[in-house]
Amino acid sequence: MNTLLDAIHDPSDLRGLSDQEMDVLAEEIRQFLLENVSQTGGHLSSNLGVVELTLALHKTFSSPKDKIIWDVGHQSYVHKILTGRKDKFPSLRKEDGLSGFPKEEESPHDAFNTGHASTSISAAYGLAKARDLQHEEYEVIAVIGDGSLTGGMAYEALNNAGKGETKLIVILNDNQMSISSNVGILPYRLSQIRTRHLYLETKEGIRKGLAKIPKIGIPISNWIRRVKRRMKYMLVSGVLFEELGFVYLGPVDGHNCKELQKVFQQARNLDEPVLIHVRTVKGKGYEPAEENATRFHGVPSFDIESGNIVGSVFESWSEVLGRNLVRLARKYDNLVAITAAMVQNTGLEEFSHIFPDRVFDVGIAEEHAVTFAAGLAKGGLKPVVAIYSSFLQRAYDQILHDVCLQNLPVVFAIDRSGIVGEDGETHQGIYDIAYLSHIPGMTIMAPSCRLEMVAMLEYAVSYPGPIALRYPKGRVYIAPSEERRPPIVQGRGYIYKRGARVAILTVGVCRSMAEKAAKLLKQEGISPTLADARFIAPIDETLLEELASEHDLLVTVEDHIHTGGFGMQVAAFLSARKYPCEVQTMALPDKFIEQGTRESLLTNYGLCPDAIAERVRKFLARGEHNGGKKREA
Amino acid sequence: MNTLLDAIHDPSDLRGLSDQEMDVLAEEIRQFLLENVSQTGGHLSSNLGVVELTLALHKTFSSPKDKIIWDVGHQSYVHKILTGRKDKFPSLRKEDGLSGFPKEEESPHDAFNTGHASTSISAAYGLAKARDLQHEEYEVIAVIGDGSLTGGMAYEALNNAGKGETKLIVILNDNQMSISSNVGILPYRLSQIRTRHLYLETKEGIRKGLAKIPKIGIPISNWIRRVKRRMKYMLVSGVLFEELGFVYLGPVDGHNCKELQKVFQQARNLDEPVLIHVRTVKGKGYEPAEENATRFHGVPSFDIESGNIVGSVFESWSEVLGRNLVRLARKYDNLVAITAAMVQNTGLEEFSHIFPDRVFDVGIAEEHAVTFAAGLAKGGLKPVVAIYSSFLQRAYDQILHDVCLQNLPVVFAIDRSGIVGEDGETHQGIYDIAYLSHIPGMTIMAPSCRLEMVAMLEYAVSYPGPIALRYPKGRVYIAPSEERRPPIVQGRGYIYKRGARVAILTVGVCRSMAEKAAKLLKQEGISPTLADARFIAPIDETLLEELASEHDLLVTVEDHIHTGGFGMQVAAFLSARKYPCEVQTMALPDKFIEQGTRESLLTNYGLCPDAIAERVRKFLARGEHNGGKKREA
Repeated sequence: MNTLLDAIHDPSDLRGLSDQEMDVLAEEIRQFLLENVSQTGGHLSSNLGVVELTLALHKTFSSPKDKIIWDVGHQSYVHKILTGRKDKFPSLRKEDGLSGFPKEEESPHDAFNTGHASTSISAAYGLAKARDLQHEEYEVIAVIGDGSLTGGMAYEALNNAGKGETKLIVILNDNQMSISSNVGILPYRLSQIRTRHLYLETKEGIRKGLAKIPKIGIPISNWIRRVKRRMKYMLVSGVLFEELGFVYLGPVDGHNCKELQKVFQQARNLDEPVLIHVRTVKGKGYEPAEENATRFHGVPSFDIESGNIVGSVFESWSEVLGRNLVRLARKYDNLVAITAAMVQNTGLEEFSHIFPDRVFDVGIAEEHAVTFAAGLAKGGLKPVVAIYSSFLQRAYDQILHDVCLQNLPVVFAIDRSGIVGEDGETHQGIYDIAYLSHIPGMTIMAPSCRLEMVAMLEYAVSYPGPIALRYPKGRVYIAPSEERRPPIVQGRGYIYKRGARVAILTVGVCRSMAEKAAKLLKQEGISPTLADARFIAPIDETLLEELASEHDLLVTVEDHIHTGGFGMQVAAFLSARKYPCEVQTMALPDKFIEQGTRESLLTNYGLCPDAIAERVRKFLARGEHNGGKKREA
Repeated sequence: MNTLLDAIHDPSDLRGLSDQEMDVLAEEIRQFLLENVSQTGGHLSSNLGVVELTLALHKTFSSPKDKIIWDVGHQSYVHKILTGRKDKFPSLRKEDGLSGFPKEEESPHDAFNTGHASTSISAAYGLAKARDLQHEEYEVIAVIGDGSLTGGMAYEALNNAGKGETKLIVILNDNQMSISSNVGILPYRLSQIRTRHLYLETKEGIRKGLAKIPKIGIPISNWIRRVKRRMKYMLVSGVLFEELGFVYLGPVDGHNCKELQKVFQQARNLDEPVLIHVRTVKGKGYEPAEENATRFHGVPSFDIESGNIVGSVFESWSEVLGRNLVRLARKYDNLVAITAAMVQNTGLEEFSHIFPDRVFDVGIAEEHAVTFAAGLAKGGLKPVVAIYSSFLQRAYDQILHDVCLQNLPVVFAIDRSGIVGEDGETHQGIYDIAYLSHIPGMTIMAPSCRLEMVAMLEYAVSYPGPIALRYPKGRVYIAPSEERRPPIVQGRGYIYKRGARVAILTVGVCRSMAEKAAKLLKQEGISPTLADARFIAPIDETLLEELASEHDLLVTVEDHIHTGGFGMQVAAFLSARKYPCEVQTMALPDKFIEQGTRESLLTNYGLCPDAIAERVRKFLARGEHNGGKKREA
């Protein structure tokens, strides 16, 4: 069926293809993407947008000798299809399956692993410098979206790379979107370039155009003056990049394979830093995605015909955040929300419609987001910063230095905390307790269910210092019995079921695992005490002492890496108090966690009711509760 | 003596002064700075450079109603002098004394605390937005050096702030330096602007100039063409900022108080984001500092006449790094060094002269520095990234996501680890164990003396994965007896003195404290076992089990905050093993640590031989070694 695509096993197989065949191949690839991603879910819009760009890249350059670095990397599907991995697409983003991001372990064509935004130019410049110092010869190409260009790190890299002595090629994939919509003045400038009618492919063309204007004193007609003004305007168009030391080529139509090859070849022939401005359409060729690229950015399985998502629609933690922020914003005039290119995904869409002046989408710029929030707080507002756990890593210094050092009342809504699943190693939100809990003055909470989320959010927006809520990706957990819960008190957890000998203390959503474990154990006549930590920082010393003094075993459970986690802090605290109670921490192992579904990964790593119950059973079966083997020795 | 300065207790006292008096006052302030900083030490060059700039600011604007935010903040001395704090200068950077950085606790004139670079525009934009949303009226002014403008965060902020709807003023203090010298293409563009002969103060001036050129068809003489070209060139000069949406004013002479006031007033009258380009000379008015601004950036006490540093010259940890890197670079062709605007301060000056092609000063751009290093490593080189502990916080995500996830052999030379002293809260390097040790695959070492530093560095440059060395500010510790030491083995510490009942396990330079404590205890007949951890991550489980099984008390000592630190990890590890051995961790308390000398702060917080000895004594005096009070209960 895909007669051309079937014959492509390596980029070198593109060599013999005519321009017309390349166009046919592009359509075959689009069909392949649709058929596969509609089944597996994944990043659709961005990949539909780079079909011709990727084809032209692989036809012009020789990967893996030439190194192509994909910024963020979710747009690398076409690259994967062309580099011998198309048969693996049914396993995309699944456990042990094809990654949705570049992975050197998968293929030598993946020159640098990516996942977070704005890293590609730094990495490319590093590779290019290493090449030059070792007198090797290959091209290094960074492909970066206009969204990633709102991240300051990309600017640091452009500023360093634009010195002229090292050749590298930056391809600006300008699709007018980051994930939701672009932010700041840069996208505005890019759109100015895009909408210009007089269109010239390369700077060279402009230079030639200028050279044609007579040089000696003749009367300047209005016509010439107009053309000259236009010319100058165009000269200025790429000036942001030229000021940064790059030769600017473009803009070029990103869906014209032939034109792309031409400009890539021009870039190849130059011997200095080049930036190629390519215009693409996110979702190109699939109407539902062209119309709503954000919805099809990262998408679950869907019906190709209608574009409708397959499977049940559920309420997510993010939506609970958003809806309750709207409610609280009505109550508190000074409440504002900040997000980094994630208005929809963090649940802020409704908020942004109701309070357009009180939501700030800063682009993919987490560092600025946090210090900007510090400024807003200093100015008397109550900012809620909604950012994914994995991306908030970017702002560690700003949280410490700009927010906590001044004890500013900024609320951090840490979305996608814990295992995120299909996006794999680069996106797991399993470090936030470790990178936040040691910062003096930082309070960290974790809601165990929807009710707690609402209560904690209310608590947070009234709290007079820095405070964070961590909650996971996906469907919000609704506790079966909405029993009365004690009010939120700073730094305090609580026991919600009193049992004997063993206590289970959980962080956030791990509570439901403990409740299920307790049900299993009940059938065996075992009745552990169950407690909800609520606060990760500060730790509840009173609760810990109570649990430790009344039980033989305290099990902590958290969806976070072991080192630096909650359990480690509990163990260290109780170690100094020397209760006879044994502490066992259940957390993720100290390693990068691969892709898979959230449920299956948690189970694989022992964060599930069965594993908790088994811990308790094993301990009780040992029958030596006042200390282990070594104590007797 | 300082007749004018003596009368200034508040910025409002400037109001009556004539232009001439302002110039006299500027000279009095310079004299005051010299007399004070030559005694106390501190940041001299940057403050001498902003005397007129600060005077003009305070004469034009009304602080504290108008908010002035000083990027980094080490250039805020003149501001402090003018805002009622000149009498406190003898206590500058001393314990309980005047801070060298803006501190809201000190004065309402300090609108936002700073310390790290590139935060001011984000914070200012936040304040300005808060002002507008609350319908208040005041000006917000960010003063940022050209060095700080190499940090991507500043660009993120410019990109967000340049949208035109919120008034704020950014003053670019262009002194052609960051701390050592500026980097990348941006400084080059700024220097192009600086060297232009035709000098016009404001864009308005240029516009008027252009308007004078006849509009209708007359023969263009060469003269007019030349002028036009020049005009266009100048129009383009500020284009980087104009592209980012700012009205660009300048460049203006930063040592002409009258001119500065004029342009500040113009900015005040505008109702959109304004960037004022001010040219200043670092060290202005003091010849030794003008000639060597880097040396007088942060300076200890010095002799005003000669400019010579008072006190002994010693070898620093940074110099040990630099000298040994030179040696290793001769051995390993692929060794390269990276620093973020700190060539001299991290000890890389000699390296940069001998191997100019193999050192990369990326500017104040720690994020780029680390991912750039990842690229270099991927390309086959062995990068050593020398950055201060406090500034490396900026690159937490890049270390995790770009280096460790790909297990790339990057060496992190973490300078100024532990207490740094006089720079205070914003600069303490006391979080690095917490923010690094939980990252999977990261190895962290800490040398206890010069010999260990050399051995560990050699080990690190041959190590096939990410590895860090943390070492403090100041004079390198040379162990009195250079006894034979065991070779460095991955993840292993060692016992260097065997004693009884109590073991002291130290991190890095805390070893010498333990050795001195042991000497004190020896006189009392107490002989603790002494061990050097060498590796912080991974922790040496074998050594810990050995120490715990053979002693009643294990004391850990580290110059790092308690939570997330080494001791906490040791305590948690041993807690799970249930040895009868008690673990006591000696670390810094979980709070921000104020300014003071390194020695005095360490002593104040119990990190000193006396405190260690006292811990041991107290424990032994308790006489109940197999468990504390609560165990008996």
